[in-house]
Order: sequence, then structure tokens, then C-alpha cells
Amino acid sequence: MNNFSKELLTVGEMASGVSLTIPVYRLAGSGKGPSVYIQANIHGAEVQGNAVIYQLLELLQKETLAGDITLVPYANPIGCNHKNGEYTLGRFDPITGVNWNRMYHFEQSIIEPFAKEFADADIEVIKSAFKQKMLSDIQDKLNHNNYGLTTGRRIAYQLQEMAHQADIVLDLHTGPVSSKHLYCPEYAKDSANYFNIAHTIFIPNGFAGAMDEATFCPWWYLTDAFAKQGRELNFDKESFTVELGSQELIDLDEALIDAQSILSYLQYKNVLSSNNYQPEKMTRYACYLKDYKQYYSPMGGMVDYLAEFGKPLAKGEPLARILRMDNYGDGDALHYLTLEEDVLPILHFASASVHQGTELYKLFTNYFTISN
Amino acid sequence: MNNFSKELLTVGEMASGVSLTIPVYRLAGSGKGPSVYIQANIHGAEVQGNAVIYQLLELLQKETLAGDITLVPYANPIGCNHKNGEYTLGRFDPITGVNWNRMYHFEQSIIEPFAKEFADADIEVIKSAFKQKMLSDIQDKLNHNNYGLTTGRRIAYQLQEMAHQADIVLDLHTGPVSSKHLYCPEYAKDSANYFNIAHTIFIPNGFAGAMDEATFCPWWYLTDAFAKQGRELNFDKESFTVELGSQELIDLDEALIDAQSILSYLQYKNVLSSNNYQPEKMTRYACYLKDYKQYYSPMGGMVDYLAEFGKPLAKGEPLARILRMDNYGDGDALHYLTLEEDVLPILHFASASVHQGTELYKLFTNYFTISN
Amino acid sequence: MNNFSKELLTVGEMASGVSLTIPVYRLAGSGKGPSVYIQANIHGAEVQGNAVIYQLLELLQKETLAGDITLVPYANPIGCNHKNGEYTLGRFDPITGVNWNRMYHFEQSIIEPFAKEFADADIEVIKSAFKQKMLSDIQDKLNHNNYGLTTGRRIAYQLQEMAHQADIVLDLHTGPVSSKHLYCPEYAKDSANYFNIAHTIFIPNGFAGAMDEATFCPWWYLTDAFAKQGRELNFDKESFTVELGSQELIDLDEALIDAQSILSYLQYKNVLSSNNYQPEKMTRYACYLKDYKQYYSPMGGMVDYLAEFGKPLAKGEPLARILRMDNYGDGDALHYLTLEEDVLPILHFASASVHQGTELYKLFTNYFTISN
Amino acid sequence: MNNFSKELLTVGEMASGVSLTIPVYRLAGSGKGPSVYIQANIHGAEVQGNAVIYQLLELLQKETLAGDITLVPYANPIGCNHKNGEYTLGRFDPITGVNWNRMYHFEQSIIEPFAKEFADADIEVIKSAFKQKMLSDIQDKLNHNNYGLTTGRRIAYQLQEMAHQADIVLDLHTGPVSSKHLYCPEYAKDSANYFNIAHTIFIPNGFAGAMDEATFCPWWYLTDAFAKQGRELNFDKESFTVELGSQELIDLDEALIDAQSILSYLQYKNVLSSNNYQPEKMTRYACYLKDYKQYYSPMGGMVDYLAEFGKPLAKGEPLARILRMDNYGDGDALHYLTLEEDVLPILHFASASVHQGTELYKLFTNYFTISN
Repeated sequence: MNNFSKELLTVGEMASGVSLTIPVYRLAGSGKGPSVYIQANIHGAEVQGNAVIYQLLELLQKETLAGDITLVPYANPIGCNHKNGEYTLGRFDPITGVNWNRMYHFEQSIIEPFAKEFADADIEVIKSAFKQKMLSDIQDKLNHNNYGLTTGRRIAYQLQEMAHQADIVLDLHTGPVSSKHLYCPEYAKDSANYFNIAHTIFIPNGFAGAMDEATFCPWWYLTDAFAKQGRELNFDKESFTVELGSQELIDLDEALIDAQSILSYLQYKNVLSSNNYQPEKMTRYACYLKDYKQYYSPMGGMVDYLAEFGKPLAKGEPLARILRMDNYGDGDALHYLTLEEDVLPILHFASASVHQGTELYKLFTNYFTISN
Repeated sequence: MNNFSKELLTVGEMASGVSLTIPVYRLAGSGKGPSVYIQANIHGAEVQGNAVIYQLLELLQKETLAGDITLVPYANPIGCNHKNGEYTLGRFDPITGVNWNRMYHFEQSIIEPFAKEFADADIEVIKSAFKQKMLSDIQDKLNHNNYGLTTGRRIAYQLQEMAHQADIVLDLHTGPVSSKHLYCPEYAKDSANYFNIAHTIFIPNGFAGAMDEATFCPWWYLTDAFAKQGRELNFDKESFTVELGSQELIDLDEALIDAQSILSYLQYKNVLSSNNYQPEKMTRYACYLKDYKQYYSPMGGMVDYLAEFGKPLAKGEPLARILRMDNYGDGDALHYLTLEEDVLPILHFASASVHQGTELYKLFTNYFTISN
Repeated sequence: MNNFSKELLTVGEMASGVSLTIPVYRLAGSGKGPSVYIQANIHGAEVQGNAVIYQLLELLQKETLAGDITLVPYANPIGCNHKNGEYTLGRFDPITGVNWNRMYHFEQSIIEPFAKEFADADIEVIKSAFKQKMLSDIQDKLNHNNYGLTTGRRIAYQLQEMAHQADIVLDLHTGPVSSKHLYCPEYAKDSANYFNIAHTIFIPNGFAGAMDEATFCPWWYLTDAFAKQGRELNFDKESFTVELGSQELIDLDEALIDAQSILSYLQYKNVLSSNNYQPEKMTRYACYLKDYKQYYSPMGGMVDYLAEFGKPLAKGEPLARILRMDNYGDGDALHYLTLEEDVLPILHFASASVHQGTELYKLFTNYFTISN
Repeated sequence: MNNFSKELLTVGEMASGVSLTIPVYRLAGSGKGPSVYIQANIHGAEVQGNAVIYQLLELLQKETLAGDITLVPYANPIGCNHKNGEYTLGRFDPITGVNWNRMYHFEQSIIEPFAKEFADADIEVIKSAFKQKMLSDIQDKLNHNNYGLTTGRRIAYQLQEMAHQADIVLDLHTGPVSSKHLYCPEYAKDSANYFNIAHTIFIPNGFAGAMDEATFCPWWYLTDAFAKQGRELNFDKESFTVELGSQELIDLDEALIDAQSILSYLQYKNVLSSNNYQPEKMTRYACYLKDYKQYYSPMGGMVDYLAEFGKPLAKGEPLARILRMDNYGDGDALHYLTLEEDVLPILHFASASVHQGTELYKLFTNYFTISN
């Protein structure tokens, strides 16, 4: 007998009537630790998180759990099944262009009235009532809407219903061609030391529609609202986007390493009763979101990416060189691209063919090391 | 000899090095009337505006102009050339998903300091200085940016440089399968009566990145800022998105009719010295943007669109019926879609195959007629 | 109780594990008439055949049938669900580019040995043995293949297994923007008079992978092989590709008219016991496949399609005009396209934006009328 | 001054009127050696050949040439510029699905009459007349065609005009994720030893539309036709498809290695006067085209590719494992894929997400080593 339960969530229908379902796995904890929600593959090409969930399920069945854990692979079956040519086109709805990870719900205007209404309530009452408030908001949107919902919101809201039940949320992503990196709320900086991930972006409290923001922003705003009323509360909610490396790849061996990294963090948060998982010693670099820069190609051409990920690149050193054979003989056929400050390259574009203005690299600037 | 000038604007480079250029046509006025900027085809599949510009050029050469007129067809050569299968995929950058008409620039924070600095200046001084301020902002973004610009912003900013020179801006679009309709700023309601377009959406002062907003919002905000300082100024800037019907169609005869409609408006605004163009008598319907609703398909299936555009549809009358052959024999194979209020259908989705959550219709609710 | 049966055929799996199924409807006849197989939507965007099958099911339940009828809508769930932007990309596998209607199986080398082996057999024995031979060939390919099958062949072979059971096969398609037309084997010319379709292409006995060819060619070749051996046999197998008009459209009212047209043909072939359906009087045009011409755009540009479908176009009359705004002022902005012979336009490209070399029109040349 | 010439070939026009051009580089030889034509990037995503041509141009300028050399990068600007999402969709015309490398021209029926007409002619006369015959055929198709040409044929025929001028043709390609390999005509087996490529496929004399076939098949057929007439002629024409590794990658350092490999072959054929380039010692594996197998995925899922390229894989050893998280808990979540014979994996699919029936691997079976 499995010591987990499995359920299928129906999140959409295609033109032929095919139902799209998502498998949901649940492991029960003793109730003494925080609850956890982990999902993967909201972006269609970012499949490695499914392999990490596979390895998590294998490892977690050997553990005694203090908190409940919900695991959701294939979180977006439309994105995951949408091939465009040989590749998977999965960062945005191919019909509307809207990023699948920008469709979660949060209505900031609920914060202040709620903080006033529950000004003197017990923290557990607050937590329960606020969670209920967020869930009923979403259920309203899912079920009482004469004009309907977009394909993406129907998926996102159903995922968010599960995420709101948890204290800890991990959204597993990848970059195009990428190193591992972590998006971490500024207030939860310490937690970044427990993942085996060498690069962390600290993000401020602002909602742009992503899952991590949709789950931590409401609580962070609520904390602020109570602080303004003179009460310091710690709801102990954390939410991360975990970037596992490159898209379009499945590597079950590497997935085991990433599953262990996640368990190291979950053990630190007392979700596991055991003491089997420790963070690795490594130099962990970080920068603030405002310093996480996108570098756009200054020309069209064919790119030979030169900079190594996660290795400081001194100003003036080449990031890449661009081949422009059309200029051979009467212009410059090779262009070296450099920056005027030190950077730490984190990821680059997935293809060697770029138009002028394609995002070539994402890079840390003004980066620093955090303790390990 | 042509009584217009022609120039090529280079807006991008593709992977092979091919330069992408946009033709710009300019007709000189006497300087006594407002200047005009008209562009077409920023969305790749919305080609009919190019035909309207053709007809405008044919007609305008017979007119004496009070104001300068700039005409820009093929405003987005990347979108316009991007075929996906047989159709043109052109509402968003196929690499990033970002809508090509959401990349214009406006920084609201410049308004208040500017209004303070020019509190007592002459209106012409204000107009000239503010235009200069906006232009230099954009030139900074285009030319002084170590990390570069996205493909779309490079195009949008160059178009916006031209638009900011004008008093009147018309951005020619189409819907998917659509009636003609007009997006009109609330403060310029009267102008809607001079286009031969039966459906108008009145839009409030809010910037979401579109060309019309990018050109009228700054002036509207500035008007408000001066009003707060006690000065009522009218900068007489107007900007419209003109929706010419359906995408993926060129009809030169219909384009002539639409060119005449635009000249009727321009004559009203004193851009033309003649009196050749009068608005047609017609029932003109309007609604506010908040009442312009999107209706999303409640199921996947094959759609037989039933409602006629621009004709009031009583509550309970079918918008469409959805065929679900997979349900034939053991479920409902035909589903009739209705709404619980009276609506005026304006456009519908371009294809009969829809997933659950596809935007099926856009409709006026709470609509009313405006004088003609 | 339904007087038909319904079954689901599993034809594929997507990346997330979702099974793709096809509904199959069967109506039983008395066994006195020929059996029929009708499928729709093998090309993803060609959806109207599903609506025709809906209407056929509605009408057939009121009829007494002499022959069995199998009806298969949504024959290709991958193509049918594959949106690319707003439209359905469904003429070819988006991964390989192979046309979904070029993957059926026929091995010509089986003909001659078979004709020798059954040289003197009874015609019913021949029909049964040859059908069995073709079916076992396909089952071998489906089930005994260490290196597997392409996505498209797995679908095509399962459809073909059903088609080979029938005496009459109708494959329901549409053109891009198109008139109704019929592909009819040369030897079955008379049958073209019983469809309410004004344009017929007579096709020779040659296999290029399409469903109609895959079902009639084997029998035609077999007839020839027996003829060479001195026996004139008539297996009375017919197969048609029925082009219902334009893609990306569902029109249930028009579908009823097309269902009646098909029943007129089936009644003529004694599939129906009643006498309810008669062919309409109309001028029916035809040409041979070699005279069914594709006309490719001589330039890139925006196309205003001028020629009407199904109406003779005299040589020198314009098919279309192409707008090239980039040439306005220093070249020809409008180009009229003409041909040097009389033609009958049947369909044109789905979009107004074309590259040089895009197929603009398909046209009858050397066409003639057939009796009605 | 450059010791090469450069020319631009116009091969197409896009919808906006943009001309598509191909740069053509020519280096003149002394006329004592065979002439060479090398092209790259006919498939849009297969860009590395452009980098090899860059390195060839750098190296060749230091050499004394016996034969003329023509170098054509970016051979297909439509394919090369066609982004679909982040990647380049370039194996087939996105409108028609036709493989860009299946559109070259060869009409087999010209062979026999030609061989008869020139039965006793001098070999140089034959070579010159046959080349002229092929060129005039192509020019007819390009220039005298009322119904026009497809986009792809217009490009292919112009490339073929250049290729037919040469004695040696190299078409530079890549696989999806791939080892280096070579397509070599069976009659030119010895030449395979002069490329630094460990895997060669020997292809028979059959025309399916590809560039290599289109250039060697006519001469091979002609050789056969003369042989039947009793004359053994050797026209010494060779043509190869050189697969440089994986698509979507530019690596200028690796390109230098491949340029040296090509020069080793060209030196062996006496195109170079020097003796600078020698083939490397390596184990060279080969198989016949009929033994070069495609392996299609038996299920949909997420693939962890396990087999290493170019390393013999014993029967029963896993090629890959497929993750099916939807089956976790109530089925098999991991499936190992094996074959029943020894194989040599050469390339695999570009993405980890596959539908049932996606081509997973291409593999040598019945392979053997060739001398080095």
C-alpha cells in the first residue's frame, strides 16, 4: 500500500473535448510541522521539476513527516503538451501570449480592512480567517463568473487553492540554458542557505502575478498592516521559485541531488522529523531583484555564448561573440559583447540565432556572498 | 513629382542580418492646423490599415492641408512577416509573448515636477517643453542603455518619437473577426461622431502600454496636474485606436470608405482646408471600457458563432452554439451559450476550435447611443 | 436507446500522459447494401466535417439502412487540438512537417502476386482475401515493429483499418478559403453527379499517401492486374475526398445541406432503403488532376483577393491585386495578377499576407461541364 | 584587398516587401583542380555551418587553390530567421510543412536520351553538355513558369544553379542533439576516410529531393546509362551532407576543427596545392542507409536520454528512460527503452517532452568499421 494518496484535478478541456488533468500526490504528516506545497512544470518546457518530484516521492516515503506535503507535477498540461516544432512552447499561452506564471490572483485591497477587523484577534484565528478569505475569493472567481475565466486563470486558480493551504510553497522552474538559482523573499533570506543552490535573487514584496508572490505577498502585506497597527506578527509563510537549471531536459540523477537539496531546506523548517539532510558547503552568491539584469542583443546574428554561468565576469571580458557572415569581407563578421561592470552570468538564451533585442543573458550585478 | 516625402526607418535586424525597415510618408501642411500621425499594422495580422493608408495617400494628395500628416504602414515588420502556419502570428512577440502594442513608454512620475516647474508658463511653452521632455526620455532609452532594449521596445520607441510630434494620433488596428469600432478617450467623446464607425469604447486616463494611451495619457495627466494647481489648460491632443474590422484581410474598396471616414474626422479637426468629407448619419453605440466585456468559453469544442455584430442581443438569446461530438449519444452534443443581460456583440474569436477559457466574444454591456 | 453504437479509439499519448481518443459511431444496416466509412477532421483546422457527421447522425437515425455506416469525427485529435496563435495548425505534424493525410499505407508490390494466387477465385473470395491481406499488413505495422511508428502513422493506420472494412469511403476536408469541391477517382465519374457539389477533380490511379487513394488505389490496381490476366472484375469500391468549403469554420445549418448531399450519393449507391434524397440540379464543372493548378505569388505583399470561386475567369482578368506600400511613391504600390488562360478559381490562401512563392490560388484549367 | 569576391543573391520577398538575400563568397583557383561548392544553414536551426564557413574563409585565404571554391552561408534566410518561441523552426516551410532540403530538382527522364545523344562524345564534352542541360532545366523552372514557384523551390533552384557548376558539393547540416556524421554516396566510400568524422552513412543512388542527391544522382545515373551502352566513364563528381553536431549552437572553436576536416578532404581531392591538412586517425564506423534506423517513442512522456552517441550499445542496454509521473502510484512511472539488437546511437530528439511516436533516436544497425 502506498503511504501517499493520489488524486486527479481536471483543469481544462481542449477543442476535441479531451479533458486535461493534473495528478496531485499527498503525504500526511503528524501535524506538528508546517505544511508544504510543491509544484512543477507550470511552464511547458521546464520539465525537470517533474523528475525532482519523482525523486521527492521516492525519498519522502522513507521519512516520518511532521507536516503534510502536497506534490503536483505537470501543473500545466496545456503548456506541457504544446509542441511548436521540436520544442515545447510553454512560457505563455500560445493564443494570448500571457505568461502562465502571471495569472495567479491577489487583491491587495483586502489587506487593510482585514487587519482592522482582526486587529486584536489571536494569531491562529488570523491565519485561519485570512486563509479562508483568500480561498473564498478564488472560489468566487472560479465558480461565480458569468463571463468566464481564461484558460490560464482556470489552471492557476486551482493550483493556488492548493498552495494557499500550505505554509511553505516551492514552485519548480528552469531557465532557458541556465545555472541553478533561487528566487527568495527578502524577509526569508536565511532560508537560502539551506538549498544547495549557489545563486539567489532576493525579491521585494510586490505582486506581478507569479505563484511565489501570490503566496507570500498577501502574508507579507498583512504583517505590514498589523505592524502599522502596532502589532508585530510572524505568520511564518515562505515561498520560493526554485530554478533547477536548463529547460527541455530530464535528468533523473541530477533530480535526486535537487530533491536532497529541497529536503535539506524542509528539514530546517521542521517538516521532516529526521536529521538526514544537511546543506552543502558552497559559496552562495546573491543579488537584489533590481540588480538582476537582462542583457538584450545589440544586433541580430548567430551567438557563440562564451561566459560561464556562476563565475564572476570582469568588466570588459566578453560575454559572447556574434557572428555576422553577411558582413564578412566588407564589415565586421565577429562582434565581441562586453559590459562596463562586473557581472555574474546566470542564464542565457536557448538558441544561437537572435534578432536584435533578444534577451541574451540574465546576470547578477552588485552581487555579494551570503553565509553558508 | 510627389507632393509627399518618403523615408525608411530601420527598426531591427534579424538573425541573418537582414535589416527591417518601415516606410514613412510625410505630407506638409500650411502649419495652420494640427499635425497628425497615423500608423498601421503594429499587430502583424491586422493588415487592413495599410490599405487605408494607401487610400489616404491617394486622397490627401488632392487636398490642401492645414496640418502636417505622417503616415506609417507596416509599423512592425517583425510581426507583419511572422507567419505561423498559414496565418500571421502578430499580436505578440513570438519569443516573449509580450503584446507589440504594450511596449510604448510613459513615466507618470515626470508629470508633477513638470507641472510645478512650468506652473505659470505660457501654454505654447508648456506644450513645446513637455513634448521635448517626452522625446528626450525616449531618446535616452533608445541610445543610452548598456543593457539594451527588447526587440519590441526598439520598434515602439521609434514609432513613439514620431507620434509625440503630432497633435492627433490614429493607430489603425483590426479585431480577429470583428465589426468596426473605435477606442476614444473619455474627454474627446465628441470626436467619435465624426468617424463612420457605429461602436465606440470610451477609455479612461490610464496607461497600459498602448500607443493611444501613450500619446494622450501624458497630456491628460498634465491637464489634471495643472488643474490641481488652479489652471485649466486644453492642449487639444487626441489619440484613437481605430479598429477597421477583421484581421487577415485586405480590401482596397472598403479601405477607401475608411479613409473617407478618417478624413471626415480630420476635416472636423481643421487638418484639411476643404469641406469634402462629412460624417455619415448612423446610430452610434458606445460603452465605457469597464463595460466592454470579454466572454470566455465555458468548455472546449467547435463553435458555431450565431450572434451578429453590432446588433443588440437580448438576454437569453444565443451567442453561439458549441459542438461536442465526443458527447454525442451519451451527453449533450450541442450547447447553446447565453448571457444574463442584454449585450452588443462587437467581435469574436478567429477560429471555430476553442479550448475551455478561450476568449469567444467581446461585447458592449450597459451600452447607449451617442448623438450623430 | 440509441440505434447506433459508440466506441472510443485510443490513438496516441501526449507528453503529460494524456490519452488521445477518437469517437467512432456505428449504424447497422440490413447487409443488403454496401458498407460506408466516413471520417472528418484529419487536418486540424478542417472542422466542418464534424458538423456534417453530427447532421448525418441526426438524419440517419430516421432511415432504414441497407449497409453498415461508420462515422468518425475528430479523426486526428493531435491536429485538432494544436493551436498556433489563434488558429489551428493542422495540415501537418508540427514536429515533422509531414501532412497528416499522407501517412496511410499501401504497398503496390502485393498486387501482382495476389492476382496470380487468386487468378480463378470467385470475386467474393477475392474481395474477402484481399481485404484481409490489407488489414493484416496494417496490423503488422501497428503491432510488430521494434522501431515503432510515427505519431501520424499510428493514427492513420488505425483509421485505415476501419476504412478497409467499407465499400465506400468519404474523407471530409475543407480548403483554406474555399468553394465546395470533390476529389473523385476517374473510374467513378458518374458518382460525382449525385453530390451537390459544383466542382469535381478527377484523379488517376496513383498513391501519394492520402486516405481516398489508400482505399481505392489497391482495388483499382487489382482490377488492372486481373484485366491483364484476362478477367474483368468490378469490386465496386469508391472513395472520395469531399471538400466542404473553408477551414476554421463551423456552420451547422450548412452542415445539414452537406449531409443531405452525402445522403443523396449514398441513396444512389443503395446504402439507404428510402428514396428521400435527390441530387440538386446544378452546373457541375470538372477537370483532371493534371489541370488542377496551383498559382504561387510572384511577390511578397498584402493580397486583395478579387476572383470569385466557381465563376469562370477569362484570361487577363485579375485574380487578385497585391499591395506593396513599401513601393508607394517610387515604384508600383498595386500589382494586378492575371493568367494567360481561362480558369475557374476554386480556393485561395487563408491570409492576406504572403511571401513570394506562397500558394495563392488553386484553379481549374481545361475544365468542362459534366451532366447532372 | 580581399582575395575573394562577394555577391548578394536575392532569393525571396517577405510580406512587408523585405528582400531576402544570401551572401556568396568565391575564391578563384588555378583551374588545375576540381571546383567546390559549400553551403550551410538550409535548415534554419542548423547554424554551425555558418561558423565553419567563417573558419574556411579564414584558412583558405592562406592557401594556394587549384580549384575554385564557392561558399554560401545563410543559404535559407526564411528558415534562418523563422523563430517559433525561443527556437528556430527551420526544417520545413512553416506554411506548407515541406522540408527545405527536399525541394531541389532532378528529372530522371533526361538521362537515357542524353546518354544516347552523346553516346560517343568525348568525356569533357559530355560533362559540359550535361551540366548545361541541368542548368537550362533549372533556369526554365525559375524564369518561364506562368503559375510560379513555391518559396522553397525559388531558393533551392538558385542554390542548385551554383552547385551544378562544381565538381564537389558539401551541404553543411546538423542533427537535433547529435554526434558528427557524414552522408556519403556509396561509390565515393574512400573519401569518407579523409573527413575527421567517426560515423558515415553510405547512401545509394536515389533522388528524394536533397542537395547531395540532386548533385550526385544525375552523374551517377549518367554513369550507369553509359555503362549500359558499354562505356565506363568516371565524371569524378562527389557530394556529401556533412552533419556537424547539434542544432541551435554556434561554436567558433569547434568550427575551426571542422574546417580543418573539410580541408583535409579537399586537399585529398587536389583542390588545395599545399599539404597542410591530414585526416586524423580514428575508428570510423559506417552503415548503409537501409540500416540507419529511426526509433520512435512507444509512449508519450518525459525522456531522460541515456545512450551515448557513437558508442556501441549492446542489445538490451537502455537507450533512454521515460518518466510518466501520471502513473506514479498506480502504474509504472519509469520505463526503460531497449532494443533487440546492437546499435550505435548517432543522434536524439531535441526536447525531453515527447508524444507517442516522436522520433527519439537515429541509430546505426549492422554497422562496421572502415579503414582509416
